[in-house]
Amino acid sequence: MQAKKARESLSVTSVHVLPNDTNNHGTFFGGKLMMYVDNIAAIAATRHSRSLVVTASIDSVDFLRPIYTGSSVCLEAFVTWSHNTSMEVFVKIIDENLRTGVRQLCTTCFLTFVALDDKGKPNAVPKVIPESEEEQLLFESAEGRYLNRKERRQQTKKFTSELTLKKPWE
Amino acid sequence: MQAKKARESLSVTSVHVLPNDTNNHGTFFGGKLMMYVDNIAAIAATRHSRSLVVTASIDSVDFLRPIYTGSSVCLEAFVTWSHNTSMEVFVKIIDENLRTGVRQLCTTCFLTFVALDDKGKPNAVPKVIPESEEEQLLFESAEGRYLNRKERRQQTKKFTSELTLKKPWE
Amino acid sequence: MQAKKARESLSVTSVHVLPNDTNNHGTFFGGKLMMYVDNIAAIAATRHSRSLVVTASIDSVDFLRPIYTGSSVCLEAFVTWSHNTSMEVFVKIIDENLRTGVRQLCTTCFLTFVALDDKGKPNAVPKVIPESEEEQLLFESAEGRYLNRKERRQQTKKFTSELTLKKPWE
Amino acid sequence: MQAKKARESLSVTSVHVLPNDTNNHGTFFGGKLMMYVDNIAAIAATRHSRSLVVTASIDSVDFLRPIYTGSSVCLEAFVTWSHNTSMEVFVKIIDENLRTGVRQLCTTCFLTFVALDDKGKPNAVPKVIPESEEEQLLFESAEGRYLNRKERRQQTKKFTSELTLKKPWE
Amino acid sequence: MQAKKARESLSVTSVHVLPNDTNNHGTFFGGKLMMYVDNIAAIAATRHSRSLVVTASIDSVDFLRPIYTGSSVCLEAFVTWSHNTSMEVFVKIIDENLRTGVRQLCTTCFLTFVALDDKGKPNAVPKVIPESEEEQLLFESAEGRYLNRKERRQQTKKFTSELTLKKPWE
Amino acid sequence: MQAKKARESLSVTSVHVLPNDTNNHGTFFGGKLMMYVDNIAAIAATRHSRSLVVTASIDSVDFLRPIYTGSSVCLEAFVTWSHNTSMEVFVKIIDENLRTGVRQLCTTCFLTFVALDDKGKPNAVPKVIPESEEEQLLFESAEGRYLNRKERRQQTKKFTSELTLKKPWE
Repeated sequence: MQAKKARESLSVTSVHVLPNDTNNHGTFFGGKLMMYVDNIAAIAATRHSRSLVVTASIDSVDFLRPIYTGSSVCLEAFVTWSHNTSMEVFVKIIDENLRTGVRQLCTTCFLTFVALDDKGKPNAVPKVIPESEEEQLLFESAEGRYLNRKERRQQTKKFTSELTLKKPWE
Repeated sequence: MQAKKARESLSVTSVHVLPNDTNNHGTFFGGKLMMYVDNIAAIAATRHSRSLVVTASIDSVDFLRPIYTGSSVCLEAFVTWSHNTSMEVFVKIIDENLRTGVRQLCTTCFLTFVALDDKGKPNAVPKVIPESEEEQLLFESAEGRYLNRKERRQQTKKFTSELTLKKPWE
Repeated sequence: MQAKKARESLSVTSVHVLPNDTNNHGTFFGGKLMMYVDNIAAIAATRHSRSLVVTASIDSVDFLRPIYTGSSVCLEAFVTWSHNTSMEVFVKIIDENLRTGVRQLCTTCFLTFVALDDKGKPNAVPKVIPESEEEQLLFESAEGRYLNRKERRQQTKKFTSELTLKKPWE
Repeated sequence: MQAKKARESLSVTSVHVLPNDTNNHGTFFGGKLMMYVDNIAAIAATRHSRSLVVTASIDSVDFLRPIYTGSSVCLEAFVTWSHNTSMEVFVKIIDENLRTGVRQLCTTCFLTFVALDDKGKPNAVPKVIPESEEEQLLFESAEGRYLNRKERRQQTKKFTSELTLKKPWE
Repeated sequence: MQAKKARESLSVTSVHVLPNDTNNHGTFFGGKLMMYVDNIAAIAATRHSRSLVVTASIDSVDFLRPIYTGSSVCLEAFVTWSHNTSMEVFVKIIDENLRTGVRQLCTTCFLTFVALDDKGKPNAVPKVIPESEEEQLLFESAEGRYLNRKERRQQTKKFTSELTLKKPWE
Repeated sequence: MQAKKARESLSVTSVHVLPNDTNNHGTFFGGKLMMYVDNIAAIAATRHSRSLVVTASIDSVDFLRPIYTGSSVCLEAFVTWSHNTSMEVFVKIIDENLRTGVRQLCTTCFLTFVALDDKGKPNAVPKVIPESEEEQLLFESAEGRYLNRKERRQQTKKFTSELTLKKPWE
């Protein structure tokens, strides 16, 4: 299986923030943004693996500045690193003021996807070849994030196994 | 300002997974789920603060099992802890098989919200009174998560300040 | 077939009224509300019958007060009564002012659902056990509503059989 | 204020039933249909009154036959009768099999709307002139339905004033 | 195969322009209008052919006046002419000011559809019988438009065959 | 006013074709595609003019191949040419098979936009500097298309002035 350049999975989308995407004060919903983030990240993961993918995790997201109705949000996603059947995708979320052209970073996000074959079993994916400085930086730090996530997932499983599943009124 | 019980902010919603909410293999989009998570968490944060709120951060999410078309997803959210003008909201995401009644935990998520006054300035919020065992567990561990997030946010700011904002084709 | 408590079918959802849900004066569309009403009622009917359900009828609805953009509407539904293969679901629609916490009843609605097996044939459903005073009140008055609906349905069939099906320009 | 012909308010729309409009068995949601019903009825009421309108009530609806994905639903609405500031709108819902051209009546519905002036106060509306046999039939029976609704609304107010507004887990 | 009157395929729909349908200045998106145009035209083409149809082309559209939030847009479509397995559909787009009743033409559009059998192969369609003056005018000029489109399609194929399909950043 | 490179207005988006975007045979609606085309073209026109824009016209579109559920459609738009207050935008629509990476051209489209100032009056826009071979080809042929459109618009005005605006049942 031949390694692929990070740039080959690069996926780009632009979103106009409309009235329904915002709360009653014109601020973009964080959760709606996550929907677009997951969507473009899934395209990047599919471009790298050329197979089905499912989202395994979304890393924490800090919203550095609010986005308002009328903005244009640009999302760029690419696969930074892969390990057996899983891929890490990095997404950059930029708010472009369409009237001035000023671009400001709103936030970034790391997601992991698992590639699946047609029976739904995990499927090996190509290695990633980083080229630009940014790609290399993200590639080199990826294994650390991978190990953190592995530990985190164990903690999540342990933590959640103790939660009640009863409805609040039962 | 009088403290409020965690249970007072409890907010519950149920979502039918429809064809458009899933990828071409009938699996619910992780990002679409995040949209519902943010939405119900914002209702809980507003119930606690009785003021405007904006999402400041979403902690990492591990999808423990896939959700399929036809499922009913139950989301429960409440404010676990507050600090000055910010609140932590915990969301439990449960997949209920409507034919059998079996409920399984899909994942959980912590979000933070900032309360705003009518001019958009941060607004103090009431303290939280945990009652149930689960509420107490989450309340006691909240300060640790708060400090982690604070550090994480600094790292995010530093990390993102070095990223290029140029379009990929420039 | 074992009877089930009314409370077991209780289903709850919360809806933020967004700009697209309202007419050009910020008033929530009655029909959009009916969409949410039918949706949560169907979840309650499925929880009671643990089978497929289809809406057979929606009783009349009087909108007692308008709902505006920015409101949070809470819907609660449960099965009040059943008869062979059909169930009556009661839905309470409450408008919660998220800034003050004041809850006001907008309207209520009765719907009937038929349970279906996998071949689409009507399927027997469990009896309902009312517990709270409200559940008992609704349970006791259910047969009267059932008989009214039966007669109404005959009238509807008769009335509609006389209508022209031609297009208005034919 | 000059009376207007029923036909002047006639409003027609056609809807393609898409996958997202149906449950997991391809049957159109009753509540989604009500959304379209309210929408076209509001256009008819506005055409008659040439003012703002809000839905005051929706009469009971019996779904006489299921509608499936791929159908084309035709809705026709017109004002049948008016009284001071309120109007009754009749909606005919016809399922047209696009492959054969066979049209079958799914159900009908009566809604009432109140006309509002720009300050949101009720506004007088023109009388209705029925012409066709169908229009006359509906016109003549309208006052009876109006009186029934008036009584029903009182009963609804009384019935609902006794309901608890507490959340189910309080 | 028996010819059919143009009027038999007439299809009518009405659309309320909502906040989400407009840009940040309350003007209806041209592309959103095209979505409604294609939708009602497809219903007309299906009514004429009583078979599956796919859009083959959309002729140029000149927006003669802007449409604003709160307008009601009326769309009327019918098949003007057919040739073997293809049909030309004419759509008239009228903006009705619901407060005054004034109707103004926004634009018109010609689309072509191909009828398909159940295996997806082109399917012969009935001839069209024009009756009204407008239908006759459109019928008589249809062959000219057909020949123009045929030539245009060749030019489009030639023009597009020379375009690069590489991504902008490759 | 300084001329701008065509590449500066380049705007890119990627769209997943979902069940609701397709007819009952899994083929993407032509009109839904036009919605995305208009949307990305508007972003390109705004990037060039840095002002409000409205769609003035959409040139004819020939759908060269069908797009199916599960495809990823890539749209690229840029301003090819400008004249006083109007701009021509070219959009390339490419279907990428996400499993194989094969990219095929579905169609292309030319739209024109008018730049508006804050009072809604037409606003002068910068000239365009074409660089790549493709940009030059499109730039050079733009004036011809402009003149054709001008003539076409006159014909449209004349043609449409003769149409009846009466409802079909009047």
